[in-house]
Amino acid sequence: MDERGALALLDSELEAVGDDAAVIDGLVVTTDMLHDRTDFPDGTTRYTAGWRSVGASLSDVAAMGAEATAAVAAYAAPAFDEAELLAFVRGASDVCAAVDAQYVGGDLDEHQEFTVATTAIGRTDAPVPRSGARPGDRVCVTGTLGRTAAALELFERAASADGQEATQLQERANDLFQFSPRVAAGRALAPHATAMMDSSDGLARSLHQLAESSDCGFALDSERVPIDDAVLEVAADDAEALELATTFGEDFELVATVPEESIEAVRDATNVSISVIGTVLERDDGITLDGESLADSGYTHG
Amino acid sequence: MDERGALALLDSELEAVGDDAAVIDGLVVTTDMLHDRTDFPDGTTRYTAGWRSVGASLSDVAAMGAEATAAVAAYAAPAFDEAELLAFVRGASDVCAAVDAQYVGGDLDEHQEFTVATTAIGRTDAPVPRSGARPGDRVCVTGTLGRTAAALELFERAASADGQEATQLQERANDLFQFSPRVAAGRALAPHATAMMDSSDGLARSLHQLAESSDCGFALDSERVPIDDAVLEVAADDAEALELATTFGEDFELVATVPEESIEAVRDATNVSISVIGTVLERDDGITLDGESLADSGYTHG
Repeated sequence: MDERGALALLDSELEAVGDDAAVIDGLVVTTDMLHDRTDFPDGTTRYTAGWRSVGASLSDVAAMGAEATAAVAAYAAPAFDEAELLAFVRGASDVCAAVDAQYVGGDLDEHQEFTVATTAIGRTDAPVPRSGARPGDRVCVTGTLGRTAAALELFERAASADGQEATQLQERANDLFQFSPRVAAGRALAPHATAMMDSSDGLARSLHQLAESSDCGFALDSERVPIDDAVLEVAADDAEALELATTFGEDFELVATVPEESIEAVRDATNVSISVIGTVLERDDGITLDGESLADSGYTHG
Repeated sequence: MDERGALALLDSELEAVGDDAAVIDGLVVTTDMLHDRTDFPDGTTRYTAGWRSVGASLSDVAAMGAEATAAVAAYAAPAFDEAELLAFVRGASDVCAAVDAQYVGGDLDEHQEFTVATTAIGRTDAPVPRSGARPGDRVCVTGTLGRTAAALELFERAASADGQEATQLQERANDLFQFSPRVAAGRALAPHATAMMDSSDGLARSLHQLAESSDCGFALDSERVPIDDAVLEVAADDAEALELATTFGEDFELVATVPEESIEAVRDATNVSISVIGTVLERDDGITLDGESLADSGYTHG
């Protein structure tokens, strides 16, 4: 059984399992596990690892349209190095502070591979589901896409570079890896969005998941996809940049469907850029990008 | 830096880190990571692993005197076997149901070693600290001690037994491994207890931690320590049984200090047995068992 099959099995077993997070009486809970081999490339600082792993769970809270309350992390490593541990905690605390949540610590475990399990908690009286998109709604994306794809390319370049060049590449990659969980944007979208989720599996896969939950189709315009500048820099050409921005994933932006008449209200309510990249169609219309079918391809979390 | 040093470092870094769990505006949060090598001996079923790992976090909620609301788990394994995954989820769901909490799912991750990270959430307006024990209070323990020590011995015996005998030993060990998180007893103790924690590091170490937090000493009576029948069975003699019950740990019972006049009220409020095993003294009196100094020895979580 692969991970998607296993997740589907779990969903069918558990009543309260929500979309990006579970919701019980307004309390939002979500947990994630990340580890060295698949999630933290060589050169990732422990500060970035703390920021990113806790941020991934906060992003799930954001995707429900909830406010973020607190986060914890279980930190497992072969040994506990004081500087590394403090850097991790500072990254975790800083990403919580960035979304007005509190980092309240966690557990330590000796483990062969550096592994982090994070849980974030939030609160909302009106969670935004994945199932409410209606034909005619517009498709919105927060921020820019492709930062993680660019970061991984820079981490790789750093690995084959020397001295100061390697250091600079790593620093840029770490900066790109520290994303802003879209809690505030999620709160701005929540009163208007008919469906919402985060883009952690890539834009294409997120749209396929929204289409399945909402029983709808999508038509997207590639010129409106907000490609991060860093992707344009590392990609061979515009086509590759678009491919990375739409399928690579792990960007933790929000993908939401919003009635046309509410777009302005959403934009007025947040400082985060909101790009309108397409329109919700009927299910039979499929999912298209510039009129071509958009495959359900993207990152599968390891 | 060893794990205790690392934990002390974290405590000093983070404001809201509580005793057994963090508390933010009445919301109680605690997380734990367990893994194959140190926590799940050969023969542990996935049902037991689900029960025990989620139960460990629920026990931390109980130790704050809080009610339990929900739990999540991140499940990591080299491959996802449907029967194993379902058994895990059922164990996790059943232990939540046993304490009126809801198991709301979690995350899956591919990982070389079977690893589980659990988070439990609770609620209380008056968390019981570790720091309030006063000379003259009585020392109480819920349930019985030594179940885990006995379970590990039975798992070992099963490993060198054959056929039906091995199966029976494993079944008994799994039963002993499925402890009841003391949420209801914690609620009964909470209005009266001056200090409380769980016994996951063993009774001796728990008392040393309470003594440090409350700046007190303890005098214990070995005849009153509630040794589980299973320990008496596996131990060579009574002395070894007492040693296992007081130092082995991982039993997840509650250790609390309660004024003499409130003991009856606590007992009236819960079905769980409450043993009075000693008295709180001044710090200078040290920690003694039958008049002999009780060492700060016990299980250090791997």
